[in-house]
Amino acid sequence: MDKRIKEHARIIVDWSTEMGEDDNVLVLAHPEAHELVVALYEEIGKKKANPLTVYSSDEISRKYMLEHGEGFETPQHMLKMFEESDVIISIKSTDNLSTLSDVPGNILSDMSRAKKPILHMLHKKRTCLTLFPTRSHAQMAEMSLEAYQDFVWGAILRDWQEVHDQQEILRKELERTDEVRIVGPETDLRMSIKGMNPINSDGKNNLPSGEVYVAPIPDSVEGEILFDLPLMHRGREITGVKLRFDNGEVVEHSAEKNQDLLTSILETDEGAKRLGELGIGTNRDIDRFTKNMLFDEKMGDTVHLALGYAIKRSIGDDLEGNESAVHVDMIKDMQDGKIELDGEILMKNGKFRWEK
Amino acid sequence: MDKRIKEHARIIVDWSTEMGEDDNVLVLAHPEAHELVVALYEEIGKKKANPLTVYSSDEISRKYMLEHGEGFETPQHMLKMFEESDVIISIKSTDNLSTLSDVPGNILSDMSRAKKPILHMLHKKRTCLTLFPTRSHAQMAEMSLEAYQDFVWGAILRDWQEVHDQQEILRKELERTDEVRIVGPETDLRMSIKGMNPINSDGKNNLPSGEVYVAPIPDSVEGEILFDLPLMHRGREITGVKLRFDNGEVVEHSAEKNQDLLTSILETDEGAKRLGELGIGTNRDIDRFTKNMLFDEKMGDTVHLALGYAIKRSIGDDLEGNESAVHVDMIKDMQDGKIELDGEILMKNGKFRWEK
Repeated sequence: MDKRIKEHARIIVDWSTEMGEDDNVLVLAHPEAHELVVALYEEIGKKKANPLTVYSSDEISRKYMLEHGEGFETPQHMLKMFEESDVIISIKSTDNLSTLSDVPGNILSDMSRAKKPILHMLHKKRTCLTLFPTRSHAQMAEMSLEAYQDFVWGAILRDWQEVHDQQEILRKELERTDEVRIVGPETDLRMSIKGMNPINSDGKNNLPSGEVYVAPIPDSVEGEILFDLPLMHRGREITGVKLRFDNGEVVEHSAEKNQDLLTSILETDEGAKRLGELGIGTNRDIDRFTKNMLFDEKMGDTVHLALGYAIKRSIGDDLEGNESAVHVDMIKDMQDGKIELDGEILMKNGKFRWEK
Repeated sequence: MDKRIKEHARIIVDWSTEMGEDDNVLVLAHPEAHELVVALYEEIGKKKANPLTVYSSDEISRKYMLEHGEGFETPQHMLKMFEESDVIISIKSTDNLSTLSDVPGNILSDMSRAKKPILHMLHKKRTCLTLFPTRSHAQMAEMSLEAYQDFVWGAILRDWQEVHDQQEILRKELERTDEVRIVGPETDLRMSIKGMNPINSDGKNNLPSGEVYVAPIPDSVEGEILFDLPLMHRGREITGVKLRFDNGEVVEHSAEKNQDLLTSILETDEGAKRLGELGIGTNRDIDRFTKNMLFDEKMGDTVHLALGYAIKRSIGDDLEGNESAVHVDMIKDMQDGKIELDGEILMKNGKFRWEK
């Protein structure tokens, strides 16, 4: 077994989920992740915790959803299993990212609705979302499997305590900030994050991580922005997204490719027209765009904004964050722009103020 | 997809588990069974039931058990998941039948003990134990994968209602029987089954099936028997087993190969020295021995006896069956012998009395 797989498992167990004796551990894994699951079970055995792995496969879900049609109920045996779990490890490891491409959107949405009580429970657990490199993910990244493995483990196998410490500088800057301004080509956007709670994302819930994010004050967003990096939504690519905000709401939108899909996201509900997240990526081991949000949004020298719901932890006490059924991240390269905090430069042309 | 996989799934859903709307369905499957799981999810979708599949793999269990050592607890998230399930489908489909061969027996036994409350619950559910043909199982059967697939689906894809009706003749014969006598080379064994409850095993809990079985009166077994077909126990083969019973208890035993393993089975507990089951195989589509008890014990023109616990349903009301931690089946070919029920021929040289 590749030593990096064992190291990956060790980080998940020791750092990300801080697993301990008697923890009930739930692993969600596609069979392609088999080696990582084997390595995890070894680590889980060392901790004397109790593992259980769910067979996660879009191919089986697809057949089920197509035959069933709308009208899903929350499955009680699944709900109880999640309820009784202390640690939940979800491993992205598909063999075909397009498996769900022929399942109608209304059926996918109905399934998401039925699984909401399960997703909701995740916030009360120690969770880790990670990825095991497969040929399917490599292909989406336009890379060979070998090069993709180097890329993935390069981003994951880091000293996360050190990452945490470095990101604290950024988190504290954001904590004392009222107005954030993002400036770049076709971009001048302002928003308030006053009183909100910036999060140091340091390889716990997301592995890899390497970002600091915060929920904006929903009504405060003003101006326009061009997202120069594409995003994948339900297996389709949207490029060249431009948004104009007024009083926090998207009042104009366009995209170079698949604008209809962007429109449908914005029309999901009221909250889908507002921002739920501002994130700043810091992981410079992620040095290329691979069409995978788990990696892309952590890329060093980028910012991302998410239309839709705000992550609860990032909303300040006594404040309200945006609510929506969706959370769609969009990324902007900052090599050619700047971020200002209350009028002072935070980052310019891809360098933080404190970097030479 | 091979049409036989779809048919296999239909039999599991329609006949074996009689699945209905809103049933919570739990599937236990090794990744090698992926195609059958896909086909099952299609059928489960049609029924509007709720599927959940557990990733079943000896490789992950092995790593866990070796690292953990003795002292397992019953995992509560697993227990709750089983509790909330109505239907449980377990698919044997390993890629290496010897994966657990280097896990010490005491650790395996301790894991069995910890999982006992889960196994116990199975009796209250609609269950189906079946097999998806893999190269590993084919190799154990000394067959090519293609030939093994023909063999497996030949035994499984049958008209189970017709099997049920034919087996009713045999079940009724046993129901009115006091003494069963089995005679053959180095064999003359008698036991009482008076008042016990013979079961028509017709493709519900076991798929394939094709046997009628019953619990003997534990103390009634007298005489000797040679089992001319080998049995596999914890990955090792035991051949040429001879047992002599007195007052229901094994008082002499020998085996041509791995006699020490036979001895260790008999020494498990008091009940391991007594019989828990007499079964008569009727499935003539199982025309060869494949070292897999799910198939072997159903083979037409064979009888099998199990040392250890009696299956509850096969014990008559107000009677007691044998109790033990083990249940080890051993098979005897009846091509060259006879079975008598209260002195009357039931089967001779591989033909039932009512067959010409």
